[in-house]
Amino acid sequence: MSKNVKTVTMIPGDGIGPEISAAVMKIFEAAKAPITWEERNVTAIKGPGGRWMIPPDAKESMDRSKIGLKGPLKTPIAAGHPSMNLLLRKTFDLYANVRPCVSIEGYKTPYTDVNLVTIRENTEGEYSGIEHMIVDGVVQSIKLITENASRRIAEYAFEYARNNKRTSVTAVHKANIMRMSDGLFLRKCREVAENYKDIKFTEMYLDTVCLNMVQDPTQFDVLVMPNLYGDILSDLCAGLIGGLGVTPSGNIGANGVAIFESVHGTAPDIAGMDLANPTALLLSAVMMLHHMGLHDHADKIQTACFDTIRDKKVLTKDLGGSAKCSEFTAEICRRVQDLD
Amino acid sequence: MSKNVKTVTMIPGDGIGPEISAAVMKIFEAAKAPITWEERNVTAIKGPGGRWMIPPDAKESMDRSKIGLKGPLKTPIAAGHPSMNLLLRKTFDLYANVRPCVSIEGYKTPYTDVNLVTIRENTEGEYSGIEHMIVDGVVQSIKLITENASRRIAEYAFEYARNNKRTSVTAVHKANIMRMSDGLFLRKCREVAENYKDIKFTEMYLDTVCLNMVQDPTQFDVLVMPNLYGDILSDLCAGLIGGLGVTPSGNIGANGVAIFESVHGTAPDIAGMDLANPTALLLSAVMMLHHMGLHDHADKIQTACFDTIRDKKVLTKDLGGSAKCSEFTAEICRRVQDLD
Ligand SMILES: CC(C)[C@H](C(=O)O)[C@@H](O)C(=O)O
Ligand SMILES: CC(C)[C@H](C(=O)O)[C@@H](O)C(=O)O
Repeated sequence: MSKNVKTVTMIPGDGIGPEISAAVMKIFEAAKAPITWEERNVTAIKGPGGRWMIPPDAKESMDRSKIGLKGPLKTPIAAGHPSMNLLLRKTFDLYANVRPCVSIEGYKTPYTDVNLVTIRENTEGEYSGIEHMIVDGVVQSIKLITENASRRIAEYAFEYARNNKRTSVTAVHKANIMRMSDGLFLRKCREVAENYKDIKFTEMYLDTVCLNMVQDPTQFDVLVMPNLYGDILSDLCAGLIGGLGVTPSGNIGANGVAIFESVHGTAPDIAGMDLANPTALLLSAVMMLHHMGLHDHADKIQTACFDTIRDKKVLTKDLGGSAKCSEFTAEICRRVQDLD
Repeated sequence: MSKNVKTVTMIPGDGIGPEISAAVMKIFEAAKAPITWEERNVTAIKGPGGRWMIPPDAKESMDRSKIGLKGPLKTPIAAGHPSMNLLLRKTFDLYANVRPCVSIEGYKTPYTDVNLVTIRENTEGEYSGIEHMIVDGVVQSIKLITENASRRIAEYAFEYARNNKRTSVTAVHKANIMRMSDGLFLRKCREVAENYKDIKFTEMYLDTVCLNMVQDPTQFDVLVMPNLYGDILSDLCAGLIGGLGVTPSGNIGANGVAIFESVHGTAPDIAGMDLANPTALLLSAVMMLHHMGLHDHADKIQTACFDTIRDKKVLTKDLGGSAKCSEFTAEICRRVQDLD
């Protein structure tokens, strides 16, 4: 194997996961992307001491490759079973969840010219998992905000803005209510902003962001926020450009470690029927290529995908067409090859 | 004073508050609404022991009248000074925040036919105000969910749905993450739903609600949720129909106690210039009339207001016109009188 070929851990996932993963791998082949895939399953297993963990061979593959691409995972139903999505973020300390939301030409929604990125703190906040019953009928959940995680995500957001030729960062918070926790988050954002005089910094309440977002999303650029607010806002923004079926996502850690994933569901009703839309996973894979420095391959695949959607001739059902997943995939492959 | 005339405590508020309150009182006079107003100021004062409190004469008026109408209040800047909005909700145990969002004919937004109501738990959750610094750089905020408050708000939502001929209630939560706290909230909603077989009950994750909301808000009817989620969703929904300038709000407590308020800001830049739009406060006052059983007066005023907006001839600047507040108000008065 050539020295320049890089390994990526592929986690196809459940439901439509295997089909859309296969589609992405086909398109990567057509684009001659210098990637070899190591397929791994991540159904949680119980480790020593009864703690849920990622299967060792998946962990070991990720430890080596540092880069993962992941399809949708079934939400576990068993009590006490953790969300594998969360377990992956935690296991590899993927502290930044990055979701670019860019209007797709030819795919009509009530909004045009959306072009923003939500950057979500991915490790703490309301997702700390610490909860108690104080007395019968009284429960508390703890939201944990630390200086380190807040500084780290703020730095990530400003670096991202600078590296991606974006001009502003908005910190999203409720420091009027959670004065200490969101206050700490906000203070770190302000401090970091001092080091990025080339990037405009603004602060806005989460409720105000939501209101302004649905009235005019074009006013936003990069947004940075604690965990739960990011969960909410990233989905809201995905809705503006057409939903989770067309929205990519990346979970970024330190030292280049990252997992890119489609954040839609497993769609069990159409699984195995060659009807799924691989766009979200494909665009996540495009983010991955950029992350790996393979910008030419990334651009080629993205162009082929967007051209296919704009052209409207070969579209899956959810995109308004009647093509099968394999036909949509073949069309993108054809266009990728034409771009050579 | 006639026995049927009811007293309402009027809190004009800051900035444009006095102008829009005067507008509402004029329109009520034109509509011959059997209301007399007791104007009160609610600038916080320090009580015995240094605790912030509502001025006694405002508290005493509310205790007697039970019903308040409130304009916008300046956000306090002094550290330790509480939000008066929150202090009012707390002082009178106004546990349900109710915001109907209905598309206004003639006022164009990307959405049509929005017709939903957000019902927000108004007393606990993320607004508990309990925060600690554990060690330097590590802060926790406590979200408090109780069985009683959850049951109470769920019951309010179902009663509201039934009394307002609405057909479904959706509980909004993140019980996949906050299993104990949101789990408790959700369980109470489920239990209460059992007693309202005439109302359809559904459950949805907050992120999914946000996504679906911007894609198709017409799928929602009554939504019930913990405090912070309500803060976010109510603003988002206001955005769908034109913003806080046209969205009414009510804070409801036990035994008929309630404060209705416009939730927009004080707009200091245009205060005193006769340019403000009184619609949000007027529609809040219409909610108040319904709450008081004065449905005919409520309908008359609402019709006059919506007719004025649909007609597009006399509109304030934020609504796309060039009329002054007093001209817009006079136009509504004229139409109210014509409806007699
Ligand atoms: C699957 C779920 C635990 C997750 C979350 O709440 O973070 C999802 O909504 C997301 O945004 O990736
Ligand atoms: C003024 C502020 C404290 C308040 C809140 O956060 O609840 C406001 O946003 C609201 O929705 O009424």
